[in-house]
This record gives sequence, structure tokens and C-alpha cells, in this order.
Amino acid sequence: MTIDLKENERLDELQRNGYRIIQNPEKFCFGMDAVFLTEFAHAREGDRLLDFGTGNGILPILMEAKYHCAELTGLEIQADSADMAVRSVAINGLSDKIHIVVGDIREADAIFQPASFDCITCNPPYMIGKHGIANPCEPKAIARHEILCTFEDVAFQAARLLKPGGHFFLVHRPFRLAELMTGLVRHKLEPKRMQLVHPYADKEPNMMLLEAVRGGRSGMRVEKPLIVFQEPGVYMPEVRRIYAC
Amino acid sequence: MTIDLKENERLDELQRNGYRIIQNPEKFCFGMDAVFLTEFAHAREGDRLLDFGTGNGILPILMEAKYHCAELTGLEIQADSADMAVRSVAINGLSDKIHIVVGDIREADAIFQPASFDCITCNPPYMIGKHGIANPCEPKAIARHEILCTFEDVAFQAARLLKPGGHFFLVHRPFRLAELMTGLVRHKLEPKRMQLVHPYADKEPNMMLLEAVRGGRSGMRVEKPLIVFQEPGVYMPEVRRIYAC
Repeated sequence: MTIDLKENERLDELQRNGYRIIQNPEKFCFGMDAVFLTEFAHAREGDRLLDFGTGNGILPILMEAKYHCAELTGLEIQADSADMAVRSVAINGLSDKIHIVVGDIREADAIFQPASFDCITCNPPYMIGKHGIANPCEPKAIARHEILCTFEDVAFQAARLLKPGGHFFLVHRPFRLAELMTGLVRHKLEPKRMQLVHPYADKEPNMMLLEAVRGGRSGMRVEKPLIVFQEPGVYMPEVRRIYAC
Repeated sequence: MTIDLKENERLDELQRNGYRIIQNPEKFCFGMDAVFLTEFAHAREGDRLLDFGTGNGILPILMEAKYHCAELTGLEIQADSADMAVRSVAINGLSDKIHIVVGDIREADAIFQPASFDCITCNPPYMIGKHGIANPCEPKAIARHEILCTFEDVAFQAARLLKPGGHFFLVHRPFRLAELMTGLVRHKLEPKRMQLVHPYADKEPNMMLLEAVRGGRSGMRVEKPLIVFQEPGVYMPEVRRIYAC
């Protein structure tokens, strides 16, 4: 199989099922967020899964590797990123299972059948507004800042597209915890699990993993923290396990 | 000074300013919750402070010891607990600064002047409803279960009684995190800080400390976790420091 890499693109090993992924440091590279979100999430083999803002397709590819879901769809508004995702899916022989759709999260309920997904994953832009951005059309700015969609858009669409009892998994920043909780509850996506990720055991968390259930009852579980490093450059055993699986 | 102790009461040292407190294991004894809440909170010398559901007065006494607030009030619905609080305040020579009021949190805005407090503290009942309670009139049941007031009542009254920009400090259980966030935001008490308390570093948190600001802007800080034990029976240095101060 010939692998068609464009300028600045590279092919990275995922250490899972022999899967590989195309990345472009100028546009989109996945981070720990996607790996930890896959580990935090859960899905069954028969599940239909949707990923909002899929970038280069990292989340559907990792979710397929770990949970073998029946059908996975990645929605991405940036055509260049979606194109990388389509080629990565093909490289891994997953074109029958993973579908990449170019489209706007804000119009997701016009693209997909409402109440038709068992799981939705999302690694949304974390930052509010466009402060300090030189070029808001730049792919990295769109992935990181709420330029093309807000968390409100994401929660509204997740609530429309999930089946009742369906699971919404997301990763975000702790400074928006209260806003996320209220936004999810407003859309009847009840927060059921949260895990905070800390760079070191004695540092503030810089990442937050959340699971909400459409129409779930009030009451949640805060899990033990996930600590990344035991000392500079040395991952905690738990993180080494996550990356090796 | 003669100290008037009733049946089952005992006098405990607080390890702060030589202060002591009357406790009754049949009715109300303070726990780590009150000590950690005092440490998490902050107040200035000129502040007027109110404590909702003060029990034996532990929070106003600890807050006075640590922050030297000008005027502290404890509101308690159970006359027996309030009576312990009044005597504890007197033993410590604080009757001019700390006022204990017998009354219902749900009527707090009729007892006190609206928008008149700089800080409100609360260690409310954690458990929803009366499930599994033999006798819902029993003092411990009232302190632990939402029999006489709900979190909604607490948030409503805190929002009424705090000055704009005033601080609400509370301790609660993590399983109610989403509900608390939405309840606070609904009453325009914006969550600004959270700290989770874990029995051990690798265990789920069993306590949650929160600060909300009346009329504050969205955006919060999740602090590094507070870990209680380094091994069974051995407190972490941070906890030894908190208890010794």
C-alpha cells in the first residue's frame, strides 16, 4: 500500500493493533488528552459512536482499537484535517468501520439522525473567545479556541444525537468545571463520572475527563486522580500502562 | 470560671489560642470537615461572618481563632446544640464577638439583614432524604441528612444574605458535585475554587471544599488535592500542619 503523505505530514505509530496515524505539526497533532479520553471512556462492540471535532481521526481510531465498536464516525469542520483522518483510517484498513464527515458541529443534528448514537466523544476547543490569536483561521487556533463552536453548541448537539441513556465523554480544562456542569445539566446530560488529571501528585489538575449520561439521574462519582509524572521525564506506572495497551 | 457540662458532654482542646469546645457524642461532634473548611476558607479581620447550621459552634470558633473576624454568628435550629455552642463561646471569652442564634436556615433572610455578610460558611447535611434513618428527629440524623433543609435552601439563603462579592465556603460530598455547581450558579453564587480531599493519594475523594462568590464571573480554580493519610494512622505532613496551627 502506498502511503500518500503531504507537505509537513508524518506517519506516527499508535502502539495499538499496529495502527498508525498521519499528523501535521502545523495543523493538528493529538495529545495526551485523546489518549486519556479513550482510556476514561467505555463502549461496547455493538455501539455506534460519534466524535465531534475529530481532527486527524485520532479518537475514532483509538476507540476502535480499544473497544471494537461496530460503527464510528468522526465529524470535522476543517477539510485538511478531515483529509488526514480519511487517509489515516484507510492506512489502518478501517474504512468500512470509521466514517469521516466534513461538517459543522453546530449543524450535526441536520447531518445525522437524532437519538441515533450510543456514545459521543469530544475533545473540544478549551479556550473561550479569540484573545491573543494572531490568525483565527489558523487550524490550531480553531482546534484550541471556541472560534467555530462553543461548549454550549457541543452540549446541545450531543443531547440531540445521543440515544436516551447514551454516553457523552469529554475532556476539558478544570477552570471551566462549573460552566460545564451547568451546561450539561441544562441539556439533560447528567454528569456521572469525573477524573482530574494532574501533571504531578502535588500540583493542580490541568485536565478533566467527564462522562455524562443523557437523561441520567443526579449523583456522580469523582474517581481517583490520574497523575502523569512521578518526576520530570518519568511517567507514573498508570500512564505507562495506558500508553502501552 | 465554672464550666457547666451536661450529661454525656465533654470538653475538648482545639489546639488553637487555648480554645476549648463542648462536645456531646450523642448529639454533635465536629470532624475533619470543619477543620479543613476553616483552612480552605479565608476572611479578613473586619469581616462579618455567618455560619449556617453551626452545631456546637465549631466553625465560628475556629474561624475567629484563625482570621480574627470582627463579628461572627452561628445559626442553629437544634436548641440543645445551640446551647452547647453558647457555652463553648463563653468558655473561650468570645461572647462579645460570636453570637449564637437559634433559628431555621430556611428563614435566615427574615432573621438577618439581606446582603449584610462578607462570608458565609456551611457544613450542611450531606445525605439526600431520610433513607435508612430510624429516627429523623435524632440530632445526628438532622446534622447528616437533608431533613430540615436542602442544599437548595442553603444556596438560596446564602445568596440572599451575602453582600455582592461576598464569599460562600462550604464542605460537601463529591457525589453531589454537579448538583451543587448548578445550584450555586442558579443563585448567582459563582464557584471560584474547589479542593478535593482524598483519604489516601490513590483513593477517590470523599470530601469537597468549595468557594463561591456572589455575582462572581465564570471561571474557577481546582486546587491540588488534600490527602489525609500517608499510611493507616499516619497523617500527611499537610494535615499535621493544619491541625497544629
